[in-house]
Amino acid sequence: MLEKTDLYAPEALNAGISRARKALGDFSILSSRKKNEILILLSEELSREKSDIMAVNQTDYSKAVSSGIDPAMCDRLLLTDSRYDQMIKGLKEVAALPDPVGTGVSSWENADGLKIEKVRVPLGVVGVIYEARPNVTIEVFSLCLKAGCPIVLKGGSEAFKTNMRLVSVVKRVLESSGVNTDGVFFLPWTDRNVVVDLVGNTGLDVIIPRGGAGLMDIVTRHSRVPVLRHDRGLCHIYVAASADEDMALSVVMNAKTSRPSTCNSMETLLVDSGKEGFLRHFLSVCHERGIRVKGCAVTRGLDPTVDEATNETYDTEFLDLTLNCRVVDGLDHALEHIRRYGSGHTEAIITSDIGEADRFWREVDASCVMVNASTRLHDGFAFGLGAEVGISTTRIHARGTMGLAELTTTKYQVWGNGHLRQS
Amino acid sequence: MLEKTDLYAPEALNAGISRARKALGDFSILSSRKKNEILILLSEELSREKSDIMAVNQTDYSKAVSSGIDPAMCDRLLLTDSRYDQMIKGLKEVAALPDPVGTGVSSWENADGLKIEKVRVPLGVVGVIYEARPNVTIEVFSLCLKAGCPIVLKGGSEAFKTNMRLVSVVKRVLESSGVNTDGVFFLPWTDRNVVVDLVGNTGLDVIIPRGGAGLMDIVTRHSRVPVLRHDRGLCHIYVAASADEDMALSVVMNAKTSRPSTCNSMETLLVDSGKEGFLRHFLSVCHERGIRVKGCAVTRGLDPTVDEATNETYDTEFLDLTLNCRVVDGLDHALEHIRRYGSGHTEAIITSDIGEADRFWREVDASCVMVNASTRLHDGFAFGLGAEVGISTTRIHARGTMGLAELTTTKYQVWGNGHLRQS
Repeated sequence: MLEKTDLYAPEALNAGISRARKALGDFSILSSRKKNEILILLSEELSREKSDIMAVNQTDYSKAVSSGIDPAMCDRLLLTDSRYDQMIKGLKEVAALPDPVGTGVSSWENADGLKIEKVRVPLGVVGVIYEARPNVTIEVFSLCLKAGCPIVLKGGSEAFKTNMRLVSVVKRVLESSGVNTDGVFFLPWTDRNVVVDLVGNTGLDVIIPRGGAGLMDIVTRHSRVPVLRHDRGLCHIYVAASADEDMALSVVMNAKTSRPSTCNSMETLLVDSGKEGFLRHFLSVCHERGIRVKGCAVTRGLDPTVDEATNETYDTEFLDLTLNCRVVDGLDHALEHIRRYGSGHTEAIITSDIGEADRFWREVDASCVMVNASTRLHDGFAFGLGAEVGISTTRIHARGTMGLAELTTTKYQVWGNGHLRQS
Repeated sequence: MLEKTDLYAPEALNAGISRARKALGDFSILSSRKKNEILILLSEELSREKSDIMAVNQTDYSKAVSSGIDPAMCDRLLLTDSRYDQMIKGLKEVAALPDPVGTGVSSWENADGLKIEKVRVPLGVVGVIYEARPNVTIEVFSLCLKAGCPIVLKGGSEAFKTNMRLVSVVKRVLESSGVNTDGVFFLPWTDRNVVVDLVGNTGLDVIIPRGGAGLMDIVTRHSRVPVLRHDRGLCHIYVAASADEDMALSVVMNAKTSRPSTCNSMETLLVDSGKEGFLRHFLSVCHERGIRVKGCAVTRGLDPTVDEATNETYDTEFLDLTLNCRVVDGLDHALEHIRRYGSGHTEAIITSDIGEADRFWREVDASCVMVNASTRLHDGFAFGLGAEVGISTTRIHARGTMGLAELTTTKYQVWGNGHLRQS
């Protein structure tokens, strides 16, 4: 089992990535049957070791809390009973999903009868840098294995012990299945400097960073490898004049309160100026439930106890029970606000007007645009993809929640009969 | 019309990119009908101005030749009669292609009846850096317009006058069609330093560099934007023991000689050790046709006039009528050579053995793997895609020849009925 070492050695990083790269050939040709057996075996082993692993996680959690780490971060770090079970369920769901490797994306013949097929092959060696949530370790492993991709993982220092424990189970399962364990390389260093060397190593085919602005900045500046950014989620819900008010209230509350520390939670509520009754009711519910509101002038006119919303608060991903509330004059005004402050992650409208829904869909430029649904539903599990590797706010390769297909690339397979280029 | 200025001003670069970004909204909502009308109009204007533009191109070409520029580069720069007509034909072909914007990639319902659709939307602002070939200007414009993407172009200084002339026609056509001309920004500077600032500008959504190792290195080191690399093509053909010899000769000659300066031309021929008769005949044809051969020891045993092939020549993209010729002991040896020297671009086998074809397909890791066909066929036109934006040797987003679909990203459109996240 890997042990945490404070001394980071670049040669050890390079050697580990190089070994992961060599494992790509082995991972590429694993049969679906074999991959599924590994995933089921892992789910069994994680069930068996649940209490032990949760105890290790408690150690990480207590240390984080007593270190005064941001409560949102502490929440993400915690493996609750239901999150643990969800992690195990996710493995079984991924095992049950169709294997993307080898499936055809399209096929056709050219004008001269040359047969061309575009088939899915593993994306390559996937590097993931993440913070806090240790269940990401298992989610990423399961999807990458199923897609035939070796992984190089850099987890957050807060969850170090939990991650090391989880990875040791993964390695044991791989070993007992006769699969090259070099295909899973969890960096045994918590030093943040390692990130610069990691993203500069062209032995990786893609880097998926999941973290705050500081991490994103380091990755963007130093990467020599393609990056799939998982950026902040500054998500809005616009409650249109035609909205059903009960639906609006339940969706907005779900989007804000079901797990405020996640990127797909709502940060700003835009209320149509024709919805004063709804807004009054909403504000009273916020009072009751301890939700802190930053309001525009109109909102504060209705409730003078509300703090002032500013350009700065509109640009803030609170990640806790705080939200902005702004009254807007119709759809155009809402669209303008979203264009200015949205992070291109997830945006929603509550409306009963089909024309408004249509315009919102077409005109909002985000990875996910929703009508009459909670922004919290933008998620691989909720979408039925089995799990997710992250939510991409990059436009290339993958946008929005990434599942199995996003962990593949393609290869043209061409079959001729002595075909030549004519011009 | 833009004029070449020797003074590069970073503010002018940033302003131009910023205007292109603003044009994204306008380009996104152009109807297919409108886009096709523009492409047809452009094809007519380019026909009308053919003699004039070809004269300008002759100026560029003569200057390049007299400057002692590499003949392969000069060839790529030249708009021959047939290349010019192909450029015009390409516009009509792109107009005839289905519009990818708004088409669904997939759609499904989750377990609770939430409807999820993944639809194609424009990729964004596309930056292309290219050398020599001025027809790329028109190809890139046509595909990007059809995909709703504004473009920022940095062409090679050798083709500067030709490119400026082509872009002036494009701008005139856009203007007469009432479309925002800011969506086409051709950099009026030949200074290579501009590349560093260009790839560092996060107003671009993607950079597609097409050029030599020097350009690739600059782009990789300085880019803060996702890069779709169009790298060198070190392509092999393996003539297996079971190959039909007439087919092998015609395919190999086509792959080497039909246009040696292109990336999909063959650089190294691998001949099975059982094919001595074929090899003798091939070497005599090379003599007749002025093809320079670098040979392994076995090849040189058959023809002592042949130069020696080395690790260095095996690693060289000749881009002229030079090739390596190596005798290999069966498929495994051929695969090993390709793994070591291949650039992941295009690899082909000539065989009549279905088992060998199957192994070659599966085991060669390249953007395009061909059986019994010329590597020169790996091309958007030859594949029937209407045109191509380049051949990606990157694994993410797009791999191999990139057509219209590769110039889009996706957006999840989600339709609910008050759906909430349950866990």
